[in-house]
Amino acid sequence: MEQTFIQEDFLLENEFSKRLYHDFAADHPLIDYHCHLPPDEIVLNKKYKNITELWIAGDHYKWRAMRTNGIKESQITGDATDEEKFMAWAKTVPNTLRNPLYHWTHLELKRYFDTDLLLNENTATEIYHHTKAQLQQSDFTCRGLINKMKVEVVCTTDDPTDTLLHHKKMRSEQAHFRMSSSFRPDKALLIESDQFLNYLERLSASANLPITSLKSLCEALILRMDYFHENGCRISDHGLSSIPFSLAKESRVGEILQKKLKGMLLTPTECEQFKTYLLLFLSEAYHQRGWVQQFHLGALRNTNSRMEQLLGPDTGWDSIGEFQQAQTLSQFLNQLDQKNILTKTILYNLNPAQNEVFASMVGNFNDGTVRGKIQYGSGWWFLDQKEGIIKQLNALSNMGLISCFIGMLTDSRSFLSFPRHEYFRRILCNEFGKDIQNGELPTDINLVGGIIEKICYYNAKEYFDF
Amino acid sequence: MEQTFIQEDFLLENEFSKRLYHDFAADHPLIDYHCHLPPDEIVLNKKYKNITELWIAGDHYKWRAMRTNGIKESQITGDATDEEKFMAWAKTVPNTLRNPLYHWTHLELKRYFDTDLLLNENTATEIYHHTKAQLQQSDFTCRGLINKMKVEVVCTTDDPTDTLLHHKKMRSEQAHFRMSSSFRPDKALLIESDQFLNYLERLSASANLPITSLKSLCEALILRMDYFHENGCRISDHGLSSIPFSLAKESRVGEILQKKLKGMLLTPTECEQFKTYLLLFLSEAYHQRGWVQQFHLGALRNTNSRMEQLLGPDTGWDSIGEFQQAQTLSQFLNQLDQKNILTKTILYNLNPAQNEVFASMVGNFNDGTVRGKIQYGSGWWFLDQKEGIIKQLNALSNMGLISCFIGMLTDSRSFLSFPRHEYFRRILCNEFGKDIQNGELPTDINLVGGIIEKICYYNAKEYFDF
Amino acid sequence: MEQTFIQEDFLLENEFSKRLYHDFAADHPLIDYHCHLPPDEIVLNKKYKNITELWIAGDHYKWRAMRTNGIKESQITGDATDEEKFMAWAKTVPNTLRNPLYHWTHLELKRYFDTDLLLNENTATEIYHHTKAQLQQSDFTCRGLINKMKVEVVCTTDDPTDTLLHHKKMRSEQAHFRMSSSFRPDKALLIESDQFLNYLERLSASANLPITSLKSLCEALILRMDYFHENGCRISDHGLSSIPFSLAKESRVGEILQKKLKGMLLTPTECEQFKTYLLLFLSEAYHQRGWVQQFHLGALRNTNSRMEQLLGPDTGWDSIGEFQQAQTLSQFLNQLDQKNILTKTILYNLNPAQNEVFASMVGNFNDGTVRGKIQYGSGWWFLDQKEGIIKQLNALSNMGLISCFIGMLTDSRSFLSFPRHEYFRRILCNEFGKDIQNGELPTDINLVGGIIEKICYYNAKEYFDF
Repeated sequence: MEQTFIQEDFLLENEFSKRLYHDFAADHPLIDYHCHLPPDEIVLNKKYKNITELWIAGDHYKWRAMRTNGIKESQITGDATDEEKFMAWAKTVPNTLRNPLYHWTHLELKRYFDTDLLLNENTATEIYHHTKAQLQQSDFTCRGLINKMKVEVVCTTDDPTDTLLHHKKMRSEQAHFRMSSSFRPDKALLIESDQFLNYLERLSASANLPITSLKSLCEALILRMDYFHENGCRISDHGLSSIPFSLAKESRVGEILQKKLKGMLLTPTECEQFKTYLLLFLSEAYHQRGWVQQFHLGALRNTNSRMEQLLGPDTGWDSIGEFQQAQTLSQFLNQLDQKNILTKTILYNLNPAQNEVFASMVGNFNDGTVRGKIQYGSGWWFLDQKEGIIKQLNALSNMGLISCFIGMLTDSRSFLSFPRHEYFRRILCNEFGKDIQNGELPTDINLVGGIIEKICYYNAKEYFDF
Repeated sequence: MEQTFIQEDFLLENEFSKRLYHDFAADHPLIDYHCHLPPDEIVLNKKYKNITELWIAGDHYKWRAMRTNGIKESQITGDATDEEKFMAWAKTVPNTLRNPLYHWTHLELKRYFDTDLLLNENTATEIYHHTKAQLQQSDFTCRGLINKMKVEVVCTTDDPTDTLLHHKKMRSEQAHFRMSSSFRPDKALLIESDQFLNYLERLSASANLPITSLKSLCEALILRMDYFHENGCRISDHGLSSIPFSLAKESRVGEILQKKLKGMLLTPTECEQFKTYLLLFLSEAYHQRGWVQQFHLGALRNTNSRMEQLLGPDTGWDSIGEFQQAQTLSQFLNQLDQKNILTKTILYNLNPAQNEVFASMVGNFNDGTVRGKIQYGSGWWFLDQKEGIIKQLNALSNMGLISCFIGMLTDSRSFLSFPRHEYFRRILCNEFGKDIQNGELPTDINLVGGIIEKICYYNAKEYFDF
Repeated sequence: MEQTFIQEDFLLENEFSKRLYHDFAADHPLIDYHCHLPPDEIVLNKKYKNITELWIAGDHYKWRAMRTNGIKESQITGDATDEEKFMAWAKTVPNTLRNPLYHWTHLELKRYFDTDLLLNENTATEIYHHTKAQLQQSDFTCRGLINKMKVEVVCTTDDPTDTLLHHKKMRSEQAHFRMSSSFRPDKALLIESDQFLNYLERLSASANLPITSLKSLCEALILRMDYFHENGCRISDHGLSSIPFSLAKESRVGEILQKKLKGMLLTPTECEQFKTYLLLFLSEAYHQRGWVQQFHLGALRNTNSRMEQLLGPDTGWDSIGEFQQAQTLSQFLNQLDQKNILTKTILYNLNPAQNEVFASMVGNFNDGTVRGKIQYGSGWWFLDQKEGIIKQLNALSNMGLISCFIGMLTDSRSFLSFPRHEYFRRILCNEFGKDIQNGELPTDINLVGGIIEKICYYNAKEYFDF
């Protein structure tokens, strides 16, 4: 008889690893403090007509794999039927061996749909119909999927212009989990974009305040921030290639914005000065409100113009960038810290060659006022796989204190991604378990297990005050 | 009794690894799609007078090791006799423990000369005379060595001015293997070199066309490319510190070349603009002909002027560079992709800190039209060792599809380097085997073995249409 | 019964590792060729009143960990009593699991104070009083601690203006170990600093020579160098973010210094030109004297202005930088090598992403004249942990000859840090032992053990001629 793939002790190589996982990690609820789930689907408690809609339709990780495997775009994002698209994915799955997609795929099929079948061309039809039937059941709605995974909190990622109506709706309801928001004002910083002025108009409308100057732009952002705060938001997020740091006088930054408002071209330095000013301004405001700020650094985006024109952004044409991070990041954090207005901060790094730079950087601004105040965040996007997770854990362990780490998040657009927490926990417990086995940690399972529990659950709960 | 070093299961740590290697990898012929073997020796079916001539005389890897070990240059590249040079190498070998040279040395002695002796000062004389005797035998000629290793294809690396007479000769013969060429026009791009004008003269003579302008330079290159194509070439290759990307109008690039033709100095930007233009031009021409293009990126060359003056280039004074790759590489590929003229491409990276940048970059231009169209190439030069190979395999597995990988090549100047394919295959099978053992891959040996076979042989055969 | 943590075979995973460590590594004396120990305490043979003074008071590694763990500064560097500070550290220790501090802490408690207790809040009082009692004993004085660890040589790090009175005193005494000095003229290079002119005054006084020009600055440095040489110094050291390399005429560099002497501002290029000139000048002088020169490259220093103002430099606010190293480093070494005045050189790298750049770079200037002439130095500062040590060993093994490596040093300010040599030796032996176990090295324990002995002791002894 063939062995099942996702076994009880998947990824757990020895007895210590198993005990750590099963006794200290497995049962904690999930705090998914950063994701890209659609709030509307949660409020509507959406039902999915088949697994393609739920699993493939929005997942550019799978799309990239299919394209590499020689699947035509029509079968991926094009006109093919949902069942055809599922077949295209099924055909690709065996060719994703050693990619995290292979693990995720079978972990998700197992945890949500309770099947041990390996997905491939031969099993595709059976799995398609099996999951389709299940998705008709009431516990397979959007919220059903969330509850199945013991999710306690999800934090969505929202533009400042968002009405948060879905979040308000959810707060008024009795749900088994909490849905919170994150304030992500990327578009307000992107002054070089030809969409910037349009965005200011939307922001202006949203804040009900004409934006004609740097001062009114800042005011509008504060109004929206306060609105988010009133509606329970306590987290911000920024996606940047690297932290900008080019100081200029406020009056000069005001002139730069005026140039832009008049449709004039800006130099790269001017863009950098504007961004530096605004990011420092926002960070100070986060500190005043006691928020946690997040920075996702290092992506090289929109590399393929031809495909971006066809499909739009975020459809699988981004990769790992090579941006200098240390210098401007330290200057930015220092600028805030000098005035004692540096709030709790999470730094996510996309280029693993820079892991040690980040892991050692956070120590420069941990000043004893808050446990684990500056966090080096979990492996992200391309690094969200076993090796990437281990490298982040090890860099943080070696350069800082892993015991203070707030752990995993999904960063996902899919309701089927919650098992990434389980994936992380297994890898985490296996690393610590191997260390016990090798005599690198004491054979005190409660000591080590206590730290596992913190990383899996309690640190995040305390850090975000959930 | 002492154990032999190169055993049947060398580098294979568990039963799965062994089965994968012996059942799925070991028996496939070699496709050595990129090397620097001398075509004349193959045509002449050269006989070697001793192992020094064959093994040490052209191998700057060994030279660097000897120099580090404190061996004087006279014993390496100087006046010493071949036997003395062999003794110098033999004395160094035990001090190369943990360097790939230690494995290569004994793997090559075993596979070609069938000896299990560890090379050192005590065994040197015996091995020298044993191999000398063997090299007198008819199956130890150049072609004999190739056939012994079950080589199916070798692709040499040739300047556009090459007559390809050796390749023509080989095509007219009945050989057990095929010798093909690669078009490597590095010197036509190197406009900052003081050898550039001399090179244009040689190119002009070779193409039988006066080169007086950008247009005639491009025409000359096309004439040579067509000549290569007629003679079976389907692959190009470029060695660059990084991909140039600085766009300028054709007329401007023409002026830059005119300046150079007049002996004027060019600015770095002008050199970059010229290179960008010419590289885009060549890439378009490769696409028109359905060729595969290769880019070897990241070497810091000719660092030691004193020794370069004594010995010339490529004598062991190069190292791993620190060049920015992501930005210009993505712009270059995008420039071609926008016009849908991006041909099959292999990117080789020399700085392992950039592995993930390369591994994720290829996914940006894999558009489903060809399986594995853009390849992240095998560990190269300084990275051609167990750790370098594993890092490349893992980065590619994590960020892309290892199942589509076209696998190994020797990149070597020596007819004794073919066991590097075996070395690669063992490492490959061991990594997959460990994954099965750990439960990270299904225990389906045929599923995994099928992918091993593709990486070892079938993918390259299909990709290059050999 | 609970197992002790620091066991006889700590970090040694198999029988080969154990044999290599116990038979070939453990018993050699220590050559600590680079540290920051205070010469005055050695001369005075200082007695420590408690473990806080000896262990915590000067250790910014521990301070960073405590701050990350949420300990207030008053308990770390502030007004708290020594016992309170020890309690704060004890409370933090269990939260340093997986950080090298956890291993160092227990290795040091075991080796010096012979206790197997794990340090935490519950054991803190007992350990504090136990160690306090021991520190009253005569073999727990400063020199007692040195002798306990079988130290043969310590090389302190000294400014050119240092009188070396302590070193003279030690040379006149009969000690069980030798204390030597290293010449570290960082402040003479730091022309951009507002302390530079003050420093020139001190240097001038020390050399008894007015410094009014580039010529007299160089003369003063030579006078001090000769004074150091007379007093037994044979090593220099430089701490730099990266090697400067911007050539200018001597007359131009003289003008730059004149500008500085007149209090004028210098451009970054001018600073770089000055540093390049002076560093080349010093390196030539080192070569003339047959010294070894060391370069510690890659730190990003003084990132946190607020805390630096409170506590001064070197108090835990530095991290790993992202400086380009390859280009200027190769140019600098080449500039010296061209004139055949490149002395024995050790390059230490702080950013592990650049390990392979360094490991391959040293091979460019190893010319056979001295065995292991250019060294890629041991894992340093943030990299002085198991993973950092292994990465350095592997990069050096893969790109060069580990057999020529001069091995470990403490780089420490504490007399309790000598077990870092043991830590290194165990890791070293374990890596080689695993290679034997896996069949990657021959099962010839004497061959491998001979190389272990060289790396642990004999190579350094030969290289420095101790």
